[in-house]
Amino acid sequence: MKRILAALVLAIAVCMPWTASADEGMWMLHQVPELQAKLAAMGLQLKADEIWNTKTNSGLASAVAWLGGCSSSFVSPDGLVITNHHCAFGAIQLNSTPEHDYITNGFLAKIPAEELEARGSRVNVFMGYDDVTAAVQGAVKAGMKPEERQKAVESARKQLVAECEKAGVRCSVAEMYGGAKFYLFRMLEIRDVRLVYAPPRAIGEYGGEVDNWMWPRHTGDYSFLRAYVGPDGKPADYSPSNVPYRPARYLKIATDQLREGDFTMIMGYPGRTMRYRLASAIAEDTDFTYPQQIKQLHDVIAILENENKRGKDVEIKLASQLKGLYNTVKKSEGMLEGLTRSDLVARKRAQEQQLAAWIAADPKRTQMYGDVLPAMEKLVVERRATRERDMVLGWLTGGRGGNLLSAAAMIERWTSEKVKPDLEREMGFQQRDERMLRQRMVNMQRNLDLPSERAVLRYSLRRASGLPAGRGIAAIDQLLTATGKSGDAAIDAALDALYSGSKLADLQVRQRLFDADHAAVLASGDPFIAFAAALRQDTDARQAADKRYEGEMLALSPKFFAALGVWRNAPLYADANSTLRFTFATVRGYQPRDAVIYTPFTTLHGVVEKHTGVDPFKCPQRLLDAARLGNLGRYVDPRLNDVPACFLSSNDITGGNSGSPIMNGKGELVGLAFDGDYESMTSDYLFSDALSRTINVDIRYVLWCMDYVDKADILLREIGFEPQHK
Amino acid sequence: MKRILAALVLAIAVCMPWTASADEGMWMLHQVPELQAKLAAMGLQLKADEIWNTKTNSGLASAVAWLGGCSSSFVSPDGLVITNHHCAFGAIQLNSTPEHDYITNGFLAKIPAEELEARGSRVNVFMGYDDVTAAVQGAVKAGMKPEERQKAVESARKQLVAECEKAGVRCSVAEMYGGAKFYLFRMLEIRDVRLVYAPPRAIGEYGGEVDNWMWPRHTGDYSFLRAYVGPDGKPADYSPSNVPYRPARYLKIATDQLREGDFTMIMGYPGRTMRYRLASAIAEDTDFTYPQQIKQLHDVIAILENENKRGKDVEIKLASQLKGLYNTVKKSEGMLEGLTRSDLVARKRAQEQQLAAWIAADPKRTQMYGDVLPAMEKLVVERRATRERDMVLGWLTGGRGGNLLSAAAMIERWTSEKVKPDLEREMGFQQRDERMLRQRMVNMQRNLDLPSERAVLRYSLRRASGLPAGRGIAAIDQLLTATGKSGDAAIDAALDALYSGSKLADLQVRQRLFDADHAAVLASGDPFIAFAAALRQDTDARQAADKRYEGEMLALSPKFFAALGVWRNAPLYADANSTLRFTFATVRGYQPRDAVIYTPFTTLHGVVEKHTGVDPFKCPQRLLDAARLGNLGRYVDPRLNDVPACFLSSNDITGGNSGSPIMNGKGELVGLAFDGDYESMTSDYLFSDALSRTINVDIRYVLWCMDYVDKADILLREIGFEPQHK
Repeated sequence: MKRILAALVLAIAVCMPWTASADEGMWMLHQVPELQAKLAAMGLQLKADEIWNTKTNSGLASAVAWLGGCSSSFVSPDGLVITNHHCAFGAIQLNSTPEHDYITNGFLAKIPAEELEARGSRVNVFMGYDDVTAAVQGAVKAGMKPEERQKAVESARKQLVAECEKAGVRCSVAEMYGGAKFYLFRMLEIRDVRLVYAPPRAIGEYGGEVDNWMWPRHTGDYSFLRAYVGPDGKPADYSPSNVPYRPARYLKIATDQLREGDFTMIMGYPGRTMRYRLASAIAEDTDFTYPQQIKQLHDVIAILENENKRGKDVEIKLASQLKGLYNTVKKSEGMLEGLTRSDLVARKRAQEQQLAAWIAADPKRTQMYGDVLPAMEKLVVERRATRERDMVLGWLTGGRGGNLLSAAAMIERWTSEKVKPDLEREMGFQQRDERMLRQRMVNMQRNLDLPSERAVLRYSLRRASGLPAGRGIAAIDQLLTATGKSGDAAIDAALDALYSGSKLADLQVRQRLFDADHAAVLASGDPFIAFAAALRQDTDARQAADKRYEGEMLALSPKFFAALGVWRNAPLYADANSTLRFTFATVRGYQPRDAVIYTPFTTLHGVVEKHTGVDPFKCPQRLLDAARLGNLGRYVDPRLNDVPACFLSSNDITGGNSGSPIMNGKGELVGLAFDGDYESMTSDYLFSDALSRTINVDIRYVLWCMDYVDKADILLREIGFEPQHK
Repeated sequence: MKRILAALVLAIAVCMPWTASADEGMWMLHQVPELQAKLAAMGLQLKADEIWNTKTNSGLASAVAWLGGCSSSFVSPDGLVITNHHCAFGAIQLNSTPEHDYITNGFLAKIPAEELEARGSRVNVFMGYDDVTAAVQGAVKAGMKPEERQKAVESARKQLVAECEKAGVRCSVAEMYGGAKFYLFRMLEIRDVRLVYAPPRAIGEYGGEVDNWMWPRHTGDYSFLRAYVGPDGKPADYSPSNVPYRPARYLKIATDQLREGDFTMIMGYPGRTMRYRLASAIAEDTDFTYPQQIKQLHDVIAILENENKRGKDVEIKLASQLKGLYNTVKKSEGMLEGLTRSDLVARKRAQEQQLAAWIAADPKRTQMYGDVLPAMEKLVVERRATRERDMVLGWLTGGRGGNLLSAAAMIERWTSEKVKPDLEREMGFQQRDERMLRQRMVNMQRNLDLPSERAVLRYSLRRASGLPAGRGIAAIDQLLTATGKSGDAAIDAALDALYSGSKLADLQVRQRLFDADHAAVLASGDPFIAFAAALRQDTDARQAADKRYEGEMLALSPKFFAALGVWRNAPLYADANSTLRFTFATVRGYQPRDAVIYTPFTTLHGVVEKHTGVDPFKCPQRLLDAARLGNLGRYVDPRLNDVPACFLSSNDITGGNSGSPIMNGKGELVGLAFDGDYESMTSDYLFSDALSRTINVDIRYVLWCMDYVDKADILLREIGFEPQHK
């Protein structure tokens, strides 16, 4: 039965282009009313406007907060936030020392005064959004060149943001459908965030890299934070006199049993999908981008694992970075495997041919849309010319050049931009960004480990020096030539000069330069500043090309999506872009391969079954004891006769959704989304009804761990549960 | 539901000692009538005496032949035999050359004249057996010492065999229940066996070592042989004038669809189980035997893989040996993992304590059985003293010393035994064994590769030289001392002397010495002969200890099994010992771990799904083409809408059962057993109703491959099917 179903779905996916599968779609909140009938039939007991009322700007969605890279939700009137352990990991790591190893042992604030400052963390509370397409597109005039078009749109966006932002409120204009639509989002940015409770890593990260992306899963991937505001109720810097934020809405924890087939909805902030990417661009990803990226990631992991051997303090400093690298490389490998095995390029190409044929079949359509696909195709091919250099450059300037290079680049750019009128500055370097940039300078201090930075930068310089002559990075060619040496000797000499001459490892030096003027910064003689300034010649050229590309796409996308919408004759959702989205589905297992069925719930029994006593399968003794004694309390599911640990649902999510609340038909919290399954990694490109699943930690396992393992009594009471342990 | 069932079964297994699970039991044929009611309820449509009639010595069982190490069955009136590809692998390898690579390409005799001699292969046809317990045990007199008891029983057994054997008929006395029962088995030994058809390795061994022991499985593990006899119908050496053997019974191929839950029965020749082994002996296996063995196996595999690099001819010579080593090491590792994880020692110990308590609870039982468990326990502990030496010695003399050492030992022993009256000779060196010993000398020539033999012998000598002083192997100590060197230099010098001085690599030399007298053999000056003669001092001492142990057990076992029988109050089956057994069950999947269900059928779709183009997942192009075109013919299961490839059943089998026919309730062939699942490897110690499964290749996949992939038209017609391919 299931096999036949799978075959059927595949057939549909192949034949019907860009058709949303049953549970596919990362919908914007104003689209929910269009889905109301289907949602009600599936089990949603709320009305669309209870999820979000666009007139009053209120509803359940305001309980769903963005942590920047992760999602979360309020679960008490006193600003208590629940998210994934891996989303709170930075805050846990920040407060850990070899003496107080909260990563290993977990952390529990018995009273609010014990809560720990999660420096640098942000809780962004959703306040609403407006369609500003007309205002943005109105800035574009006929006859503009692509780069002019891009600049006009960017200016309009900055203008809208500037008008919108006021004390504590952050605004952003999000581009949807490749620029066919624009929305202005408002978020309350709370910047006093504290760590309340994290289970031991052996629960919160149980299964580690072995189980990452895998089902069956037994990870208790949850943690609690709390949002604080000033006594006036407005966002404020950390202060002992701050008070818990009182959210407009918080989620009730479900007490009904969640079962296979039940309706589930997720709200959260998915980061990025490529559902409408052209086949030729996917081919580029498959043939070049992923293979190259995977090699680089493995190389850097090996370098850092080697650095790790220097001691426990280095290990703590590198933990978060390594965790991220492992996660990325596993995702990239799964993606590449999936893209190759599913022959996605050929399938996408077939779809495009069908769309092209449909357009060509009608003279009017041909006139309206006929040039779109060929023009988009041409842009993809053009970008291919510089791909080797772009990859190394992106890698270097995207953080893999180390913190000192990042700091140098940021200071050089900031001091050069800050003298301009605010609306003319580069995005990311406006007044509104100053606080974040300063915070970033502070944050980088906590994990600064120069030997490992140098090792990674050395790797990047070696790669850059291997680029074909004439297609390399000018700044690096200069850097190496200046040493008067060649090969590895030149690289090592350049690194010696950079690290012995730079003072940027000193926070005060960074802060002083940040406040200096650009000429003084350049005159500081810091070799990293000089290197960063030289690199900017390379990145500026790259950025100009990007802007030209964006300008071209701004003209093409509206036509492309218009054609697609008419062809499909159904609502279209936009690719993920870190804005709030709604996805609905059911609790549902899947068939990963011939003769294997994954059922949708794992259990506490399974947690213990995986325990080997060796990391990452080393349960805390108190968990084993409680399980052995059968202390399961009210958290037992009578059908499973056990505490459910994790569950699968067919919700459509991606990275950024981590920590998202998953809710039942009443809008009550039944768990937290924390992963996707390995078999559907390519769902960023193409959602599969048969294989795409969200992996959630079941709230009953969270509660059981809080109660019987960690005895978080006060916290349990705050979210409405009386502890049951003795 | 399944989880609860699994928990329940575990509970029973722990609480009820030696209780047969639902489908547990490797039954002797005369026990089938006791099971009749249960069998009929499960779906057997035959009467017990149709399976085997002990009065007429006839029935379905006579279609089930032993290949020596594997099982098989007749499937045509003209002596056509079906078995596993891995059972016919030796015959395929024997006929393969770099020019005619039947391993890779498969082999199909289009007409009988093209069939290839499978030199050394035997088809042993089951003729029946008798209970000879009284005759054997009658030879034991009260007051005999253990070694006398062993000798008396051995003599009686030899006597019975000698009286039974006549032209072509081989007899053997099998010991059951540790010597509580003895049965005289009769087999017709057919020694002209020919290879008829083997699919390409890419079908017959699809999945290779990666999938070995694993479900889901997609291996087409089948091949066909044919048994030939002289024109007089009697077994004869290979001759072109021989004629196909006409078996008393052959199996009809099922045409009904096999489904989940259907009754299945297997008859075959399981090699060895340890279902009644004491906890302390299992502890020895867990703590010492398996870990040591696994290390040795990995070491030898690494040595041979290295030798493999010398070329295709070496690769072909070592293929069969490496296949066996990989299989053994995977089994040993799974066994060790299973023994450890299931904590089998503790569970068995608990059972023994319950049995002991039950005995102790009654004075009469105490008198009858009270001394049994302590005495058996004592024997286990005594054998532990020499375990390191015994392991190396067993390894060396069990074939891992290389073919030259094996040949030398055989020649030395044969020439020393052959002058004795036949019934006084050591078992294995009687007149009845001469043909087989001669054949073995011939067979060893085909894969003789001295460099790899030397490398493995070097490894064994190094291990022996590492044994503690005073507990080593005297013959090896002498060998190394004689070189006048020490350490590895001594070993290399000894090997130089052995290999440069020996002429045993020459078949004619071996045959000449085999026919010489013992003194002449010793005087031949061949260094391997001298080494083997010296080693015999060590092995004789070991053998004497074994015989004493056997003598002790001959007295204890009848009491032990009597106590067990009364305690259990149910039929008891004997441990496997390569005699014909019957096991019944159903087609049934299992739950390998939390949230995962294995369904009982894989499909052709799954075969193609696993195809990566890289060995061992590299389907022949003609298979991919046929599957792609949907050429499935009558072999489709309408429920699966596909050709079933392999299936699971809960039959109780072990090594030796490979190639066994698996039959439906009508006694028709539905597939061939070829593996057990990884999760139940410890079923040799303890059968698990929840986890122990037989992996079978579905006859519908065999037929489909014959028809659409290999176009084995004549053979298909011989077994009753009209080909359907175009």
